[in-house]
Parts: sequence; structure tokens; C-alpha cells
Amino acid sequence: MVANTATTIDLTAMGRRAKEASHHLAQFTTERKNAALLAIADALEARAEEVLAANRLDVEEARANGVDVLWIRDRMEMERRMPGMIADVRKVVALPDPVGRIFDDRELENGLKVHKRRVPLGVLGTIYEARPNVTVDVAVLALKTSNAVILRGGKEVLRTNIALVRILRDALKQQGLPVDAIQYIESTDRRYVGQMLKLHQYIDMIIPRGGNSLHNFCRENSTIPVITGGIGICHLFVDETADIDGSLRVIHNAKTQRPAVCNALDTLLVHENIAAEVLPRVVEHLRSDGVRFKACPKSFALLKGQEGVELAGADDFDTEWYALILGLKVVSGVDEAIAHVRQHSTQHSDGILTQDAAHAERFLNEVDSAAVYWNASTRFTDGSALGLGAEIAISTQKLHARGPMALEELTTYKWVIVGQYTARD
Amino acid sequence: MVANTATTIDLTAMGRRAKEASHHLAQFTTERKNAALLAIADALEARAEEVLAANRLDVEEARANGVDVLWIRDRMEMERRMPGMIADVRKVVALPDPVGRIFDDRELENGLKVHKRRVPLGVLGTIYEARPNVTVDVAVLALKTSNAVILRGGKEVLRTNIALVRILRDALKQQGLPVDAIQYIESTDRRYVGQMLKLHQYIDMIIPRGGNSLHNFCRENSTIPVITGGIGICHLFVDETADIDGSLRVIHNAKTQRPAVCNALDTLLVHENIAAEVLPRVVEHLRSDGVRFKACPKSFALLKGQEGVELAGADDFDTEWYALILGLKVVSGVDEAIAHVRQHSTQHSDGILTQDAAHAERFLNEVDSAAVYWNASTRFTDGSALGLGAEIAISTQKLHARGPMALEELTTYKWVIVGQYTARD
Repeated sequence: MVANTATTIDLTAMGRRAKEASHHLAQFTTERKNAALLAIADALEARAEEVLAANRLDVEEARANGVDVLWIRDRMEMERRMPGMIADVRKVVALPDPVGRIFDDRELENGLKVHKRRVPLGVLGTIYEARPNVTVDVAVLALKTSNAVILRGGKEVLRTNIALVRILRDALKQQGLPVDAIQYIESTDRRYVGQMLKLHQYIDMIIPRGGNSLHNFCRENSTIPVITGGIGICHLFVDETADIDGSLRVIHNAKTQRPAVCNALDTLLVHENIAAEVLPRVVEHLRSDGVRFKACPKSFALLKGQEGVELAGADDFDTEWYALILGLKVVSGVDEAIAHVRQHSTQHSDGILTQDAAHAERFLNEVDSAAVYWNASTRFTDGSALGLGAEIAISTQKLHARGPMALEELTTYKWVIVGQYTARD
Repeated sequence: MVANTATTIDLTAMGRRAKEASHHLAQFTTERKNAALLAIADALEARAEEVLAANRLDVEEARANGVDVLWIRDRMEMERRMPGMIADVRKVVALPDPVGRIFDDRELENGLKVHKRRVPLGVLGTIYEARPNVTVDVAVLALKTSNAVILRGGKEVLRTNIALVRILRDALKQQGLPVDAIQYIESTDRRYVGQMLKLHQYIDMIIPRGGNSLHNFCRENSTIPVITGGIGICHLFVDETADIDGSLRVIHNAKTQRPAVCNALDTLLVHENIAAEVLPRVVEHLRSDGVRFKACPKSFALLKGQEGVELAGADDFDTEWYALILGLKVVSGVDEAIAHVRQHSTQHSDGILTQDAAHAERFLNEVDSAAVYWNASTRFTDGSALGLGAEIAISTQKLHARGPMALEELTTYKWVIVGQYTARD
């Protein structure tokens, strides 16, 4: 970790500069913004060695501090990740710019012309963990939508992030865009996170990217609207009429494809009439990939003696596993399945596997999650998998945006009203 | 004021019952909800005397406590207001129900069918002042959109609100709808407001309806998303090319039609090249309605000696007047007008009066307010004036909804994804 300098960072001044920059940014055309995005991609390519040198220092220090090697490889190391990250910047150029789009336009009886116009939110605040690619992802999606951004990344990659942000700001400057559209809190001191969360005068939205405790901290301490999300205790319910082979394929995909992400399956609910057949096949099908099982008493009785199956503890159905672990529970039918999901879900992604359209419709209607599925894997809750072309976060709260958020979700609208010196009756 | 009973109100239990009721409400058809709305209107009509008797006690007590007579008449008294309030309930029946509406539907290359579906937010929490009609307004708009509500109204009208809510709940019961869809905090103890703001497990959105300090209190203390708004320091800029007669009509309307509402005009900016002509005419045109003026030094010099004109103080351009007072300021042109609005506006409603389309487009683009106007009165920022048919609040924050909020803004959406046992590649 870089030693904190004695200098105090003036977050209010950063906020003021960001707001000022956001006013300028809002006036640039899509073409100018796209040119800046291409310049950013080129600069990251040309100056990759600057980033990698800083990254090597961060990685060295993390190793010296005994940070887990897999964790370092998964999150911190940039060498293999740079080309993909740069390619993603170029992809954002091709996405449609939502800013300026007009909708709900109409003329009222009194002759007033009214429409709504998509406009940037203004200034975004992002607090995230030790993944340097998030720095570039967020900055680039913000720029495409004319938002300024104040970034605060994980302490283990401070050097890497500083190098990245320097390159991004240089590219803005070279393109004649306001450099303060992208600012980074160059300190690992946590008090700046608290200060940032109170800057409602300047910051319009907080996007935390991290675990449950970060989201809770933001919700408890922010005076700025927070997009909570990214926490998914995800369920699939195998109904009596489900196609078993198809269900096994979906369950396997949802649990094993990327177990450490938020849309991975956590709990499997199985209809009691097919549990004796389905549960052993699930265990057989997933065990070879290293999955272990936490079974409710009924499931445990049906599976007893099977390797890798243990009785579920009190909190196991309220745990997001992020690992090759699957909860198993026998339920009496769609009613109990819906009730279990309502009680234990984090309202991220939940699905039903069934041939019964009436049961499916009930589940889709009555389960109040950001994404509800019928005969598909929960892994599809993702901006690129659902065709948004990008993703800044997955919201599990209900205001503003729900589920995968991309460019349009980084905008708001204004009402534009044009009259002929029109007064109200 | 009704004496607080010694009984403690269990807000957590209220929240749990509201959430449970919201799950039921979400499954009722528009027809069933409309029947309940009509039953509410009928019951309010049949039992009006119950409300009026309670209201007379509230009014009597307020008088005895020395509350201002005009304030009592304006806000508390129900006698003249009941028929209009009941008619408004019947109007909501005719409005389209946004719940269940499907949008963004498409089929992906892998065969997944994806759409978004409008769903209720769940549970609304509303904190408001001594206007009993808000009780019925909010409950009825919530019911139409299948949301449960927890209400907390002003202490001066507790008896009236309790009578109203009893009638509303009886009507729900008679119609077979869950009575806990409408709950009222029957206490004037302020600690329950604080408790309510932390119930994020059960309440999905807080709508404060009141002054600046209530909105600030909610923003500072809530762990639930808050719709701040309703505070409007509103501006009109009279540009060099404006039609003067038309401008006077709009200014008069914006300032005098209802001076005590949030979309009333607070500050008039005038181009320096026409100030000597326009300012005296503004004063002449508005003074007969009792308007007084707070003038910047330049305006003051142009108007000196005029009755009702005084020099503006340090905070006067940051004050929402809610009264027949108008700030006057001379500016050098559209740039200074935009800069002044950015610095002093509460991002509610701001407009330009001009014949110059380029200036208008700049103002509409660069002023970042919920509603921006060209040649029209700021008084149009209102749900019914803009054709929404209703209004639950006017949002001046940027997430979820901006400007007048009606039925659609009381909903969110879910992603519905239908496959054929589809796994992600």
C-alpha cells in the first residue's frame, strides 16, 4: 500500500470541480465523446507499461503482506487483463448514446408543447474493491453518458488506479474535454469514504461495488441516493412437472459456471413429489465439479450417506455462497416455494423450472425479484447477457433501476415545456 | 392535539403487515382495485359526518392553541373540501393502471424471451403536514398502483386522519382487500418518524410532503430511498428579445396566481439592455396585486423611489418566498442568467422568455432543473396541468423520477426471462 501523504484531500473541492465539469460534459456531442473514448483506448494501449509497472508494485506489496495468491490473480493482476479492458472501451463507442433522446412528447390543449429529454445524472460516486478494471469501466460508461465521476477503489491497487486515472485524464485533456470529469480519491484513508457519502450538494448517485457490508455502510451513511445491489441469494424451484434433464442442465450452469458471482445459484427448491428422484441426480450431476451440499432435513434423509452432503445449519438458507456449495430444500409445491423465496431471497434472480404455465405465471408474478426466470439459468442476469452491451451495476433495490444497469440507467430526464407566453388558467 | 396513549406503537409489526398486504394487493386486477376506490368514495360520502366531527375537534383545539386562523382555514378545515376530495377519488378510477404493463420485450439469439413488466414498488411511507386531504390522495394513488402505505400526518389533524383512515380501511375490508394496505401511525410522537425512516426491510420509498427541514431530516436520517422535492426557488429570465406584453402576462401568472405553492416564481432575471423599460412595467403590473420586490443594486437604482421596492439582502436570492414577494436581478445576458440559476435554483422549475431560439435552446439544455420552460409560466409544473391526471409529489432529485410524479412513478419493473431450460454459454 502506498503510504498516505500528510496532505489532506479536499473532497468538497473535488465535488465542486466534478459538478462544474459535468455541466461542460453535458454539452458535448456524441461524436466528441466517442472521439475521447477512442483516445482513451489508444492511450491505454500506448502507455500500458506505466500501468503494469504500478501494478507490479501493488502485487508485490500484496504478496509481501500475505494476501491470498488466487485472490491476487483474480482481482489485482492487470497483465492478462489489459487487452480485454481496452477492447471493452472501444465497444462502448459503438453503443447508442441515450443523452438527448426525446420521449413522451405531446401538445396540450392550451397549445403547450411538452416533452421529456434524457439528460446525464451529473456526478457519480463509485466505491469499489481491488479490481482496477472497474476504474476504467465506470469512467468510460460515465463519459459516454456525459456524467462526471469521483472514484474510490480498493487500497491494494492504489498505484495501479492512480496510473490508470492519469492516462484517462491526459486523454480528456488532449481531446479538449474537462479533466475533472474523472477524479480519483488518492488515499486509502477510509474517512474519505464517509465524507464522500455526505456530498449530496455535488454527487447525484452513489454506486457501491463490493460485498454486503459496503452496501450496508453506504445505505446507513449516505445522504446521496445509493444503488444497492450485487448481492444475490438466488433460487431455482424444480416443480413437479419439470423436465428433469433440462433442469439438471440449468442447475449445473447456474451453480458451477461462475460460482463466485452474484447471479450464481445458492438454493435449490424441489417439489416433494419428485424429490426422491431429482435430488440424487442433482448430487450426482454436480458433485464431479466439486459442489458440496447443505440439505434441509427432508433432503438430507433422501440423500443420506452421500458424500459431500451435510445437514443445513440455521443460517445456510440466508447465505450467498460465492462458492461451490448448494442449499437443497424440499417444498410441498409452488406456494411453499414462493413463500421460501420471499423470505430468503435478496430480490436479485429467482426462477421456476416447470411445464405448468399456470405455476410459472404465479411464480413470475408473485416473486418480487429484479429478475424472475421460467426454465432458464439465473446466470443471465447480466448487462451483456441481456443485450445491454455494458453493465455498471446490478440493482436489487427498486427505485430508478432494477437488475442490470447500463447507459440509460446513468441518465435521468428533464421536462421541457414550450409555450407562446402561456399562462396557467 | 389528542393525548398520546401510553401504548407503544410497534412500527416493525406495521411494516411487516404492510409488506404482507402489498404481496396480496399486487395480485388484484384493475377492476377489483377500481371497485375498492368507488367503495372508498361512497363510504367517505356516507360517513362524512364522522370526519367532520373529528375535524371540528381538531380545529377547535388548534384555535384554542392560538394557531393562525388563515392557516387553519387553508390546511385543516375539511367542510368545504370533502366534496372535491371525494370527486378526486372517483377520478383516479378512470386513470390507466400502470401495473402489469409490458415493455422492452424482445427475443435474444439464444431463444430467451425477455421483457420488463411494471410492478408496484411495494410499501410507501409518507410523512406530511396538517392537510387531511393528503391522507386520502396518497392512500388512493397507492391503492390504484397496488402499493401498501404507512402514513404519518401532521399532529394538528390527528383526529381527522384517524377518522379518514378508519373509513378507508372499512371500505377495503368490505371489498375483500387487505386492510393493512392502509395504515396510519396514530401518534404525534416524533420518534416514530425516525423509526419509520429506518424500516428499509419493509418500506420501499419515503415521500416527504412538507418544507425544507422535513426533506433534510428525511435525507439525513433515512436508510430508505427518499423522494426529496417540493422546494422550488423558481426563476424566469426576460431576454433582450422577449415580447414584453407576453412576458408581463407570464410573470404575473407565475408570481400571483398561487404564491404559496412551490412552482410560483421567486426571482425574475432581466437582460440589462431592456431592464430600464421592463422593470418599471413589472412593478406597475404586479404591485396592484400586493407584490413587493427585493431588488439587486442595479434594479434598485432603476426603480428607486418606487413603493414596495427594497434592496435585496444577502440571502434573498436563496429564499423560496411562498408569498407575494419577487426578487429582481439585472443580468448581462443568457450566460449570466444560466450561471445565476445554476447557483440559486433548487432545480424545480426555471424558464426563459425570448424570441431567440438559440438562446432558448441554450437555456433549456444548460439549466439542469426538473422542468425547463420557454415562453411559459412556471406554474405548469404540476401533475394535472401536465396531463398526468394526478400527482403524488414533485421530485427535485434526479433518481427514479423528476418533476411531477403520478401513477407510473409509484411503480418499478421486473425483468421476466423465459427460456427452454436455457443455460448460459
